[in-house]
Amino acid sequence: MEVKKDMQVKQVAVDKKPEFKNFPMVPRVVFGKGSFNQLGDILMPKRKHSEAPFIFLVDDVFENTELAQRVPLIFNDQIIFISAEEEPKTDQVDALVSKIKSEYQDLPSGIVGIGGGTLLDLAKAVAILLTNKGGSSEYQGWDLVQKPSIFHVGIPTISGTGAEVSRTAVLLGPEKKLGINSDYTTFGQVLLDPDLTQGVSKEQWFYTGMDCYIHCIESLTGTYLNAFSQSYGEKALELCKEVYLGDISEEDSRDKLMMASWHGGMSIAYSQVGVAHAMSYGLGYLLGVKHGIGNCLVFQHLEEFYPEGVALFNKMKEKHGIKLPTGICSNLSEREFETMIFVAMNMVPLWENALGKNWRDTITPEKLESIYRKI
Amino acid sequence: MEVKKDMQVKQVAVDKKPEFKNFPMVPRVVFGKGSFNQLGDILMPKRKHSEAPFIFLVDDVFENTELAQRVPLIFNDQIIFISAEEEPKTDQVDALVSKIKSEYQDLPSGIVGIGGGTLLDLAKAVAILLTNKGGSSEYQGWDLVQKPSIFHVGIPTISGTGAEVSRTAVLLGPEKKLGINSDYTTFGQVLLDPDLTQGVSKEQWFYTGMDCYIHCIESLTGTYLNAFSQSYGEKALELCKEVYLGDISEEDSRDKLMMASWHGGMSIAYSQVGVAHAMSYGLGYLLGVKHGIGNCLVFQHLEEFYPEGVALFNKMKEKHGIKLPTGICSNLSEREFETMIFVAMNMVPLWENALGKNWRDTITPEKLESIYRKI
Repeated sequence: MEVKKDMQVKQVAVDKKPEFKNFPMVPRVVFGKGSFNQLGDILMPKRKHSEAPFIFLVDDVFENTELAQRVPLIFNDQIIFISAEEEPKTDQVDALVSKIKSEYQDLPSGIVGIGGGTLLDLAKAVAILLTNKGGSSEYQGWDLVQKPSIFHVGIPTISGTGAEVSRTAVLLGPEKKLGINSDYTTFGQVLLDPDLTQGVSKEQWFYTGMDCYIHCIESLTGTYLNAFSQSYGEKALELCKEVYLGDISEEDSRDKLMMASWHGGMSIAYSQVGVAHAMSYGLGYLLGVKHGIGNCLVFQHLEEFYPEGVALFNKMKEKHGIKLPTGICSNLSEREFETMIFVAMNMVPLWENALGKNWRDTITPEKLESIYRKI
Repeated sequence: MEVKKDMQVKQVAVDKKPEFKNFPMVPRVVFGKGSFNQLGDILMPKRKHSEAPFIFLVDDVFENTELAQRVPLIFNDQIIFISAEEEPKTDQVDALVSKIKSEYQDLPSGIVGIGGGTLLDLAKAVAILLTNKGGSSEYQGWDLVQKPSIFHVGIPTISGTGAEVSRTAVLLGPEKKLGINSDYTTFGQVLLDPDLTQGVSKEQWFYTGMDCYIHCIESLTGTYLNAFSQSYGEKALELCKEVYLGDISEEDSRDKLMMASWHGGMSIAYSQVGVAHAMSYGLGYLLGVKHGIGNCLVFQHLEEFYPEGVALFNKMKEKHGIKLPTGICSNLSEREFETMIFVAMNMVPLWENALGKNWRDTITPEKLESIYRKI
């Protein structure tokens, strides 16, 4: 993996304890095998006029596939295929916005993201930046977006991130990896068709599902939890267990993992993630390690913090014959470790959620380095 | 109980199998003990101008209580106290709409319902009828509402009905007991403050909570179920068990029952209720029996259809020393039985959900009469 050149971490994520937040839910959701066929009908009433297109941002693994042909293009609609090999970036968002603005006189009727967390987060961010001035990095943070976004639709093709239901679009920027956290980020429409997750590789299926599993463990054992988030988190966790340890059909498994992701995303409304996410942000920032696998790489070494959660994780990993890569951090310099540790330790609310106000008694740079060195 | 005079049942409920429905979710929700104190701040940005009031429809049990004093009245806002002794009626909705229109030149900024299912359904219906012409009975049915309602807010003070999250407002009309089922029915904002449910009597707490429990049993055993509704229904059922059979604090119990109601309401998105609700509609139509207790009165005699559900129901009833009234149907005439049976048997989708397409093989007028006679 390429090591990030610019080591100047000027600002990193700061989260807020979302007590009594007026949480924005996705106002429309369709669920069902084959419901993707309804997409044209769903978009029709949202078309402003024939010159205001829908722009479909689609994971490029679907290029030249049947799914791409089923995208209901009319008028001057456009599909833009995008690689999800790397985490979504602020530059990428800005380039997409420029492209769309230069190609069309009118604002689009809407943006439709079709793919995993990367495509969904790009769709959210592009929808926001089409109506808000400047670059996307200016909006990384909490409630910095001033104007409503254009209509945007999320259609997951892999389950686990919760991006379909969250109010954030996590982007890797020049100075930070941080979400655009805003009420305007939430999708205006989500379509959940479990059939779309059929072609996913076993590894991707595992890493992305574990994103959901790990954030459930982190939020359910955290200090921020309330009954709202607990009920969603418990259901998501239960569904993960059915999917990764149960004896159910593949069809049921796809259905249930899609719902696990949905509930897992909702559980974050009034809770927060924890140690694995904080440390995974460090890996992601420095090495570009993707979110799902990054969480797994860290989580396997967190028995101290999540003994039961890690035991179950190992069981699931074994059952599905998943071998995590090793030696990721073996050739890093001291300065690189410092950067990762700096990024991770700045995720204050995640640590507070995990360990309480006195988290600094437990979490030291040495402690984090010793964990990173195992990865 | 007063027997309904007009026996002419011209039309009763017909539901639709909601496959691939584009389900409208409540776009904003606040959860938390004490969150009612935020109501003023939440409403402020929704105020159109100082002449466009918020109208608060509040259960009259709160008249002269601390809660009534905490309602954030400003400008020409108004509280209207309403009895929830009877099921909400179309006449009542129309009278409220006339009153509001006659007292104000401008449409209100919004309607806020504070109470149980009755108050929440009234608030939904009033919000719709303020922008849609004619009487509320014209909109009982599916998707008959033409224009968006005004902004409306739901604040439950008792948990179980799921009315806070559903897209229906069930009204007793001159010809039918049926909901205004529309995307415009769904609240624009819900506030969930478990502290508001503190003063509820044990009986009301039980009957209303059982509304949730029974509709979970009905939807989870039904033929319409999909993974979306199943996951919500399972969580709601689990929470009901914790509340009514578990050993938890009163505070936890209030929290969990509020979430059970929420998830139970969501589970109806792609599922349907069953035998108890169908028969309870008959009781409600003829005798005005309220929904919660009506469901209990019927459900206790449904071992044949829901053996495990009824066994657990009896256990919960016993644990809380609930004695259901008896002899409700003992003095009814044959014609009155016929009316109830007619109303119940016309709930076709409920029977189909419960027993499949061939439900008429099992459900005969004689069968229903024998069950009603036990009540």
